Parts: sequence; C-alpha cells; structure tokens
Amino acid sequence: MPTNSPNKITLSSTSYGKSRIRLVQVSRRGDRHDIRDLTVAIAFEGEYDTSYTEGDNRDVLPTDTMKNTVYALAARDRAGEPEAFGMIVGRHFIERNPKLTRVHVDLIDHGWSHIADGAREHGQAFVRRGPEARTARVVTDRKGASATAGVTDLIIMKTSRSAFEAYPRDEFTTLPETKDRLLATALTATWTYTDPDVDFGPMFRTVRSTLLDAFARHDSLSVQHTLYAMGDVVLNTIDQVESISLEMPNRHHLPIDLTRFGMENRNEIFVATEEPHGLIKATLSR
Amino acid sequence: MPTNSPNKITLSSTSYGKSRIRLVQVSRRGDRHDIRDLTVAIAFEGEYDTSYTEGDNRDVLPTDTMKNTVYALAARDRAGEPEAFGMIVGRHFIERNPKLTRVHVDLIDHGWSHIADGAREHGQAFVRRGPEARTARVVTDRKGASATAGVTDLIIMKTSRSAFEAYPRDEFTTLPETKDRLLATALTATWTYTDPDVDFGPMFRTVRSTLLDAFARHDSLSVQHTLYAMGDVVLNTIDQVESISLEMPNRHHLPIDLTRFGMENRNEIFVATEEPHGLIKATLSR
Amino acid sequence: MPTNSPNKITLSSTSYGKSRIRLVQVSRRGDRHDIRDLTVAIAFEGEYDTSYTEGDNRDVLPTDTMKNTVYALAARDRAGEPEAFGMIVGRHFIERNPKLTRVHVDLIDHGWSHIADGAREHGQAFVRRGPEARTARVVTDRKGASATAGVTDLIIMKTSRSAFEAYPRDEFTTLPETKDRLLATALTATWTYTDPDVDFGPMFRTVRSTLLDAFARHDSLSVQHTLYAMGDVVLNTIDQVESISLEMPNRHHLPIDLTRFGMENRNEIFVATEEPHGLIKATLSR
Amino acid sequence: MPTNSPNKITLSSTSYGKSRIRLVQVSRRGDRHDIRDLTVAIAFEGEYDTSYTEGDNRDVLPTDTMKNTVYALAARDRAGEPEAFGMIVGRHFIERNPKLTRVHVDLIDHGWSHIADGAREHGQAFVRRGPEARTARVVTDRKGASATAGVTDLIIMKTSRSAFEAYPRDEFTTLPETKDRLLATALTATWTYTDPDVDFGPMFRTVRSTLLDAFARHDSLSVQHTLYAMGDVVLNTIDQVESISLEMPNRHHLPIDLTRFGMENRNEIFVATEEPHGLIKATLSR
Repeated sequence: MPTNSPNKITLSSTSYGKSRIRLVQVSRRGDRHDIRDLTVAIAFEGEYDTSYTEGDNRDVLPTDTMKNTVYALAARDRAGEPEAFGMIVGRHFIERNPKLTRVHVDLIDHGWSHIADGAREHGQAFVRRGPEARTARVVTDRKGASATAGVTDLIIMKTSRSAFEAYPRDEFTTLPETKDRLLATALTATWTYTDPDVDFGPMFRTVRSTLLDAFARHDSLSVQHTLYAMGDVVLNTIDQVESISLEMPNRHHLPIDLTRFGMENRNEIFVATEEPHGLIKATLSR
Repeated sequence: MPTNSPNKITLSSTSYGKSRIRLVQVSRRGDRHDIRDLTVAIAFEGEYDTSYTEGDNRDVLPTDTMKNTVYALAARDRAGEPEAFGMIVGRHFIERNPKLTRVHVDLIDHGWSHIADGAREHGQAFVRRGPEARTARVVTDRKGASATAGVTDLIIMKTSRSAFEAYPRDEFTTLPETKDRLLATALTATWTYTDPDVDFGPMFRTVRSTLLDAFARHDSLSVQHTLYAMGDVVLNTIDQVESISLEMPNRHHLPIDLTRFGMENRNEIFVATEEPHGLIKATLSR
Repeated sequence: MPTNSPNKITLSSTSYGKSRIRLVQVSRRGDRHDIRDLTVAIAFEGEYDTSYTEGDNRDVLPTDTMKNTVYALAARDRAGEPEAFGMIVGRHFIERNPKLTRVHVDLIDHGWSHIADGAREHGQAFVRRGPEARTARVVTDRKGASATAGVTDLIIMKTSRSAFEAYPRDEFTTLPETKDRLLATALTATWTYTDPDVDFGPMFRTVRSTLLDAFARHDSLSVQHTLYAMGDVVLNTIDQVESISLEMPNRHHLPIDLTRFGMENRNEIFVATEEPHGLIKATLSR
Repeated sequence: MPTNSPNKITLSSTSYGKSRIRLVQVSRRGDRHDIRDLTVAIAFEGEYDTSYTEGDNRDVLPTDTMKNTVYALAARDRAGEPEAFGMIVGRHFIERNPKLTRVHVDLIDHGWSHIADGAREHGQAFVRRGPEARTARVVTDRKGASATAGVTDLIIMKTSRSAFEAYPRDEFTTLPETKDRLLATALTATWTYTDPDVDFGPMFRTVRSTLLDAFARHDSLSVQHTLYAMGDVVLNTIDQVESISLEMPNRHHLPIDLTRFGMENRNEIFVATEEPHGLIKATLSR
C-alpha cells in the first residue's frame, strides 16, 4: 500500500463522527410524563490528518464514545430543547479534545402528543406527530457556538390563489399557463437567531406557525414568489430571526383530462406526483 | 417457448390489476375547501386463464383503463368515505366485466388538516397529518360487497404500566424481566362491520379513539395482553364492529446502561430501535 | 379494563415472533472467506390464548430469546443454505416449546461477491450484489417441515418482443395498442420442491437462470402471458419444482411524445415510472 | 402580504430547477440493444430575484420545460456517458437563458447488464445491477463546464486486516480494542479530471476498480486510514484524476457475545447494524 506517495497529495476538508444516534428521554413529573425523541449526529473537524495518512489513532475519539457521551450528557443535564442540548454536547467535545477545531451537532426532534382522554390528556401515553420533524444544528468551535433551528417534511397544500403564467416559451414548452392550480410542497426551512439566548421552544413554534400562515394567505404567482413571501414575513415579524433558508420541492398535482371520457374536470380531480418534481431554494437575511 | 406443456400445468389464484393510483379530489363549498387524498389499488380475479396461457387479451380490461375509471368515477360520484368510494368502484367493474368473479379495491386515505388561522382555520390551505393513514378494503363479487376499515402506521407509546416477566427461560435467555418498560408500536388495525350501512367516517373516528384510549389505560403484562385488551374494548363498546385484527410490532426502547459511566439510569434514557422488532398479531371476533 | 367481556369474544389466528434479525456469518477456510448475510423472521402459532386474554406469559418464549437462538444455532450448526438453516431453526423451536403448533421461519439472503483481483478474486473482500435477494420460508409443525425457495426484487427489462393489444375498450380507454413496448418488472417468485432433500444452492441458481432465460426469450403478448411462460418453463424443465408463484409489477416505461417538439420518437426515449403500476400474480402447479 | 418590507431583506443563493427526471434511452444496433437509464436533476442559478420578490416570471424557464428539454436533447444527441450528456444539457440551457449564471446538471446512471444466454448474452433483455449507481455532476457557466464523476451506494466489506485500537479513552469509553473486525461501508466517491476530454466510460471503470482493489488490499488501522489509502492509490495511479472525495459510513458489524450461552464466537457471528453508524469523509487532491 502507498505510504510514500510519489505525488504530493493534499488532504482537505476531513470530517468524522457518528450519525443516527437514537435517544429517547422520558421526564416524569408525577403522573405527567414527557418524551424527548431525538436522532443526533456528531461530526468532528480538526487536526486529524495523521489518522488518515498513517492510521495514527492517538487523538481519534471513537465514534462509539461519541454515542455514549450523548446518552451520558442527556442523563446528566437532560435533553431539553434540541438547540440547547446540541450546545451542551458541542461544548463537552470541544473542551475535551485538543485537536478538535469544530464540531457539528445535528438533531432531529421527533414530535409526540399526549393521547386524548376526553377533553383532557393521558399523561403517560403518546401518539407520534408527523411526518414533519423539528431540526437543529449547532456548530461549536473555540470561540463559541452558533445554533440553527428548523423544520423538515412539513407537507402543505393550498387549493386556491396559486397561479403560474407569463413565463418564457420555446419549442420545448408544453406546460399550459394557469391562474388556479394546486400548490403542494414538503417544506424544509432553517433559520438563525440574532441572539443565542432566545427561548428556543416558543420561538420555534412562532416561526413554524408564521410560515404556515404566510403560505395560506399568499396570492402565489409561483413557488419562488410564495417561498420569498414566507421568509419575508418571518424576517419582518420576528425580530429574533437573523436569516432564513427555505427549500420547497414542487409536488405537482396535475389535473386529469376528463374530456377524453366526455366529462368535465372543474379543477377538482388531480393526480398527485412525486417524480419528477420542481425544487426551489433561497436564503433571505437582514 | 412452451405452448404445449408436456406436463399438465394447473393455473391457480391469478390476480391482475393496478396499484398506487394517486387521486386527489378537491371539494369547494364557497370559501371552504376539502381534500380527499387517496392511493387506490384494484385487483381482478376471474376467468382470465387464457390471457396467461395463450396471451388472449379479449377479456383483459387494461390496468390503464382501471386507473382512468377511478378518476372518472370520482368526478361523477365524488370520492367520499373510502369504504363508500371503494364500493362504487367495485360495483362498476363487476357490472361491466362478465369474466370478473371478484374485485378487490384497496384504499389508503392520507389525512390533511386545515391550517390554523388563529382560533379559526384557513379554508383553502392544508397541512398533512401523519404518519398514520386510514385504510379501507372493499371486496365485491356477484352477490354484493363487503368492506373492511382500518388504520395503519399509528405510532403510539406508553411510558408506564407496561411489564414483561414470568416467561420461560432457557440457556439462550438474556432478557431481564421488567415491571416498567416503554411500550411502543406502529399499530395496524383492520375491522369489519356487522351492517354495511354504517356511517363510515364517524365510525372510523370512534374505533380509532377507542383503540388509543384502551392502549393508554391498559395495565400491560405483554404486547399480546394489550393487543387483546384493545380489540376487546372495541368489540364490547362498539356494537357495529363484527371482528377486528390487530398487528403490533414491538419497537423496542432499550434502557442505556449508565452504570458503566458511574451514573444511574432512573428508567429515563433509552435507545429507540427498529431492527430487530417483535411482531404480534391477532384477530378477535364475536 | 375489560377482563370479563359481556360479549363472547373469539380469538383466532394469533401469531407472535421476532422480525428483522440480522445475522452475518463469516466462514474462514485459510485465505478464502465466505459470507452468509441473512435477515431472519420467526413467527410462532400455537396455544397461547391466555397470554392474550390474561397476560399469562408462562409459555411465551420471549422474542428476544428467539433472536439469541438464531445466533446460537448459526454458531453451532453454521448458517448454510437458507432453506436448510430455516429447518434447523424451526426444528429447534418445535422440539422445545410444547404449546407451539407451527413455526414460520422467513429468511432473506443478501448476496455478496468477492471483489475481483485481476482475473482472480480477493478472498477476503466483498461487494454487495443487488438489489435482488434470495428468499426462503420454512414452515415446521409436529409432522415435519416444508420449504419454499424464492427470489425478490429481481429487476428485469426487455426491449423487444413485447406487445399489448386486442383488449376490450370502453369509454374510459385511452391506452394505445402497441406491438413493441418496453416490458420491465421487479420479479418476486417463490417455489416449492417435490422432494425436501434437494440441493438448495445449485437448484436456486438453476430456477433463477431459467426464469431469466424464459423472460428474455418470450414473445410477450402481455405481462400475464410472459409470467405464465416463465413459470411453465420452470415446471417443464426442472422436475424438482412442484409449484411456483410469480408476482410481476408492470413498471411502465412510457414513450415520450416528441412530435410536440417537431421530433420523432423512434421507440427510443421513455420515461420510467413506478406509480401507478400494474400488478400481475399467478401460481402454477403440476 | 408584505410587498414593501419595512426591513431591508437580502436575497442570497437562490436556485430553482427540476429533480428526478427519469429518462430511459434504448439504442438499437440490429439485434443488440443497449439501455441508458438516468435520473437527472437540473438547477438554475442566476438573476432571478424579481421572480422571488415580485412574482415576475418573464425570465423563469418553467421546470416542466427543463424536463422536456432533457428528453428532446437525448433524442437529438443521444444520452451517452452521463458526464457528456450533462455537458450537452448544461450548454443548451446556458446558451438559451440570458439571466442564467450557472446551471448544475446532476445525473444518476442506473446500471443494467444483458441477461446471460449460456456463455453469450441475450441482446434485448436486461437485469438491473445494483444497489450501486454511477453518478455525474456537470456545472456550466459562461466560461465553460466542469464535470465530476462518481459512484454511490457501492457496498463493500472486508473480513480481514481491519483493526481499530490505540485510541483515546475517557469515562464514556466502552468500545473494546480490536485487531480483527469486519469493515463494511456504502462508499460514495466523487472525483474530478485534470482534462475535460477524458474518455468517461473507461475512466469511470478504472477508478471504480482501483477503489475496490485498494479497499481489498489495505491493512486497515481505521476507516480514516483505509479511506485515505483508497484515494491515494487513485491519485497515484491515474494521472487524469485531479482530486477525489470519499464518504464512508461505518456500517458496524458487532460480534455476538456467545459466552452467555456457553459458546465461543470465533470472530464468526455478527449482527449487522445500520443505526447508529460512523461517518468518515475526506477530500484528497494533488
């Protein structure tokens, strides 16, 4: 095997860590329990080149230990809001590992609701919410930490006030212009806060509901137009948000041509498709 | 190719049809819209042997036509409750196709909720509920139709009153007995009604909430025990249900051994696993 | 919770077990290693009603023990051909568990090939074959065991000699007749042997290659027609096969209408679709 | 809706396009057919801000037209090697769309082999290879195009010469050191060429087999060590490769502790896991 490369090889942008660490933490306050259900990924960047070039593991914290540490820190400090827990985990690793320059902690927070008990709730039984999930990413280096909050797989649709027309045409254009189409997407959004001391839980819920409300209200001329409007409302109404990135696949719902059957489609019958799909992305910041 | 088989070949249990037909129907009543979002599968059983043995297509309704028919019938009669729409579709095919003995219509009903507008709702904008889905199966033959209702991927967990102990031990036993474990599953349930004229929508919601409530209340000695209790409550409290089948994978949540880190796990920190999983099934009937 | 049901409840068709047990066994013969990579599922049927109705676990072998047993039996007897290993596992459980009436062992055998070393092979390094997998199902009761062999996700396509025409038409027909279409499917086949003492490995490879060859050679008038031809060749050329079931989703490849762009599609450009798809099934036996 | 933002909003890093365009092209040379089976994604970056801020679609080529264009260009110029076809597509769009600054074309090339016909091959029937796929990414701007080649989901395992030891320990370490473990990964690699006029097909096969051979031969001290060795051999033996990025999840295969059953595990019986997994990445360049 090549240990002495005849060519000069440069090693850049290395990263190693543990992905898909599954942590469920139950908090018990009398008869009322709560669940935090997380999927955590850790990625280390730092001065680890000799582990690649020479197999020198003396500074390579095993990814198995990373996993154990996540469980231990949850037991010690409680896994609360994902942004906060990500900071605890990031700080732990940066303090302990001298060759570590930067550590990424990515968290997916799977939501559960208490099962209804008439007008009340069963305190110790839960039903999974979804398909959407809350997300967080915390990047920690020697100077401090920065947190990004987010939501993914938030599947939304509007059945009115969505048009797409006045676009350029060429010999390959077959799409009919429309003033009234279905608009459906699986929203992924991530945002950063101006102040790291924000109250992460309530703030997440505010941004999420603002995005949903803006989507519902918008007179859409395109996915791009609605994506921008959603980000714009967040930045204009929530001072604590510094920037926001949105990613909106266009899950096309195509009207069925019923005239072939001697029938009329009054904008009512659609086939839902996932492939192919449009994909629109943008970042808005102050 | 063998057209004259030297051996006598028997052809049994044939079936053909179209799967994963995606239908979204929008109902517009003024400013209030509603969505029915279905995945439909059609399967024909009948006297179609020569289509297999000789490629004789004269009685083979194309699966593409099956798909078109689903859209046309939705436009003509409206896709309402999935059981009812399945009966419309089944009856259409059985009346039109003389060689058809039995037709299966399987429906998955993907739920959407109106997006909240403060304390009210946006009438024309929706967010997907999930991961659970409502299901229905309608089997239609020359004598009539029978409907099965159901729910799938209803992911539930209880954090108290779940034990598993007093089981047989052998030299391969390593599982510790427990009086207090997490119990999590992705419930699939299907049930039949004594009377085909049941009000399918409200009845579905009653069975679903009865299952959830029974799961929450049960003092579980095993998954089998809780599965039975859930079915038993349904049959004892809802006269219209004739029989019910439940399928409950045991999604193990294993407590992390924190003593290795000099810490104690007060039944609080778990790893959620999907592989391997237990799988418990049963059918209860009157 | 209901322990005394006011209605008489009948409990039927119960089953419990462990699914998705992942076993990799390495056999080392000098420098030449081999891998057996299995996903195993165990399902018990028997006199276990009181475990459901009363939570009586005294006869309930834990599914965790089932999993341990699979590993222990592989270590003791070696996991060879999946049908044979399924028989070892089934026999073990039926002999040990007096309330057990019937045990199902389902096995998926994930294929690996040795990595090429020029014209030879590296003896200890492997690349995964796929997406297809070999399957087996063994059902064991007090009288003995029966084995079913199979293959799944065997994705195949033919680009000639596939027609579909002369089918019935109605007002919902839009499919054009064709003498020359692409025919693609993801084959699932399962078959039984007349004699349980068959040499499972070579016989599996013979059936698999016979199915592929028959698919390639057939002048197809429909999926049904080709499915039958494939099963028919197996039964006519391989005496040891008693019956065979085939399941062939029709993965439609639709020709693109290039005339809209002033171009001609000489049966050359297709869109591959997965949704919706046809689904054709049949069982052939002697 | 906010059209006049009170705050100054900056719009950065926008992108829009079409994903998951499925193209199958059949080439017919007499009795010998060939298939090119691609999934294509197009992403436009450019001066499209007013489409976001004002819904001005006058320069927004519809993503539906992008899809049509892919089919039309395949018909006109033939979809050959994915890197070459990506360049054709990119150039078409950059020449036609004045506001377009940069276009990304991502291609996944799904492999098919001819079905064996004894020692020969059926010319017109195919079986899918996988799970691995060949990939390409072409980025085209006003100055020209650059191509990245790659492979993904190449699942490989070695059953000898893989160790992991001499790593740092802390109070959360539980991993035992090992001189002889299974090493399994699902390799994703992408690489760039020094010269855009490389012969893409043969060169892809050379890089792929070089990676496999290096993986098989390496005396691994860690995943990092083997990843580097694989990239190093490519750069040292294939002059045309300028840089290479590798991504190797560590799919842990954990030895089963059989001592609990009074048995010994001679490094033979493993449980294959997918969650959690290590994840190692690096880029090597000259």
